[in-house]
Amino acid sequence: MNIALDVMGGDHAPEEIVAGAVEAARAYGVTVSLVGKPDLIRRELAKHATAGLRLPVTPATQVIEMGEKPATAVRTKPNSSIVVASEMVKRGDAQAFVTAGNTGGALAAGILTIGRMKGILRPALVAPFPTQHGFCIILDIGANADVRPEYLPQFAIMGSIYARSVMGIAKPTVRILSNGEEDGKGSQLVVEAVELLKRTPGINFCGNVESKEIIDGAVDVVVTDGFTGNIFVKTAEATARLLQKVMLQELTRGPISTVGAFLAQAALRRVRRRLDDSEYGGAVLLGLSGLVVVAHGRSNANAIRHAIRVAKQSIEQDVLGKIQAGVTQSDGARPRKVVDPV
Amino acid sequence: MNIALDVMGGDHAPEEIVAGAVEAARAYGVTVSLVGKPDLIRRELAKHATAGLRLPVTPATQVIEMGEKPATAVRTKPNSSIVVASEMVKRGDAQAFVTAGNTGGALAAGILTIGRMKGILRPALVAPFPTQHGFCIILDIGANADVRPEYLPQFAIMGSIYARSVMGIAKPTVRILSNGEEDGKGSQLVVEAVELLKRTPGINFCGNVESKEIIDGAVDVVVTDGFTGNIFVKTAEATARLLQKVMLQELTRGPISTVGAFLAQAALRRVRRRLDDSEYGGAVLLGLSGLVVVAHGRSNANAIRHAIRVAKQSIEQDVLGKIQAGVTQSDGARPRKVVDPV
Repeated sequence: MNIALDVMGGDHAPEEIVAGAVEAARAYGVTVSLVGKPDLIRRELAKHATAGLRLPVTPATQVIEMGEKPATAVRTKPNSSIVVASEMVKRGDAQAFVTAGNTGGALAAGILTIGRMKGILRPALVAPFPTQHGFCIILDIGANADVRPEYLPQFAIMGSIYARSVMGIAKPTVRILSNGEEDGKGSQLVVEAVELLKRTPGINFCGNVESKEIIDGAVDVVVTDGFTGNIFVKTAEATARLLQKVMLQELTRGPISTVGAFLAQAALRRVRRRLDDSEYGGAVLLGLSGLVVVAHGRSNANAIRHAIRVAKQSIEQDVLGKIQAGVTQSDGARPRKVVDPV
Repeated sequence: MNIALDVMGGDHAPEEIVAGAVEAARAYGVTVSLVGKPDLIRRELAKHATAGLRLPVTPATQVIEMGEKPATAVRTKPNSSIVVASEMVKRGDAQAFVTAGNTGGALAAGILTIGRMKGILRPALVAPFPTQHGFCIILDIGANADVRPEYLPQFAIMGSIYARSVMGIAKPTVRILSNGEEDGKGSQLVVEAVELLKRTPGINFCGNVESKEIIDGAVDVVVTDGFTGNIFVKTAEATARLLQKVMLQELTRGPISTVGAFLAQAALRRVRRRLDDSEYGGAVLLGLSGLVVVAHGRSNANAIRHAIRVAKQSIEQDVLGKIQAGVTQSDGARPRKVVDPV
């Protein structure tokens, strides 16, 4: 098994990326192809004991910067690490591509270079989301700012297969994010998607869900459009960060502020650990004919190791094959459009 | 000035509602018409010193329950407190209507009974939202699950006038909630709305905004569709509540847990005070030919008093007149549709 890793992407590239590759190659016995500037990669590799590990270097001399328009960058920088890594997947030289770089760039490279799986209307970005009792997964969190109702059943199928195969949830519940729990509540998109989701085979669809219930841990797979999903995830992250900051301010105020500071620091560390999704390996772009794992920009070696583990597990569990089968089955079950007799 | 108050709506009705009305009548010298079951209202009024205060009772014998479909309930319960109160505004017997009841019911009564202001495409629900440095306002947070791009400039005008007149912000900045800050980022709706917002006179439009910047306090008025706005607000609320709970759990763990508990309780009280929007009087439904203030369901007497203050201030500042003028001016400035020469 060969996993192509973008060594140039991420806040801590290339040090932590290479360190994570070394850890993963050792822990999981996989081949990790290091894609990027060869001199940089060799300098980093020299810091580690890599004897017996499979860590080949694949040169890529260009880098896509944070400010660039993703689609343009992918088209004009054929020798950038994410394009080179995507092409390895496209050719079958690698079974997955992992990056901690620009999400937009990874999406564009995945869609333009690797291409959609047969029968898939749109790929979706799936991510773990921390709840009161653990993690659920949510998709789409940003691959498609605009969706049509018929995309949502496919998102539900992809999410369910991912939750089963990678998160180990036997019969994941699926709900659609809406502005009210009641049946019939929601935008036109939600209302139409609900009707399609109700008759989608192979998923455990349980209706609408509101933010509060997701956060309370009431559902395994949340489906939504990429605009709402992106705002949902970012709002929760920003609020959690603000609350931690405000709590710290308030705890370190007053006469026994040093005790407060001590307790607050320890508590905040534990809170952050509860919310930390790095063991889940970041987001996965599903619906392409190859696998793309998008780790957090802030990924350290441990997060990269887990992103590689997620890629490995998805390959072993044949997530893509199962998605292909699920989508085909659902297509066959889809009732033909009924024309109203006038 | 006469403000019609729905005495039957809210978690703490009728006690806290009547108590808030008494406080407001005393503090602001306004007439507060108490709309609801007369015997209940008189029983509550007897608990207070009301000599010299203008607190007339307007009978309404029906109550809209939480589970009812708003539009149906409004149509089939003409003698419910929210319908009776809306009709007072419609007839001009009251200048505003305040309720802590079912938001859906208040929206339906406002739209069906009071009706839209001339030139307004859709009314919007405006609410204060706590940020790191204070409060911004956001609209629409739930009156319209589906919007068209041309509604957004009107939301921006209404929000700016409200921020100026009621929140006291001299030249409020307006931004549109999106999944990226960069120009051109967003759903089709956002991209089209941005073009319209850029040429809307009388507003200080500053482009896209992401959740994080809103929470950091970088903007005064956030415009969005009612579906996204509703999910944004509910996600932030639910996350803040979960974080407080988790922090409390983590602080009261370990060897010096009693000290932790003491500090945590005090800190949480201060955090809640910082996030408390009751002084802002809840949400306001703008764009109708009368004013509707929707206080929180959990409103106590103080929150009701502030909701009445917001109504009074909006009337004194002629918010509705200014909105009418702003919308008319913007309509005049709107370029006619350009037809592509084929």
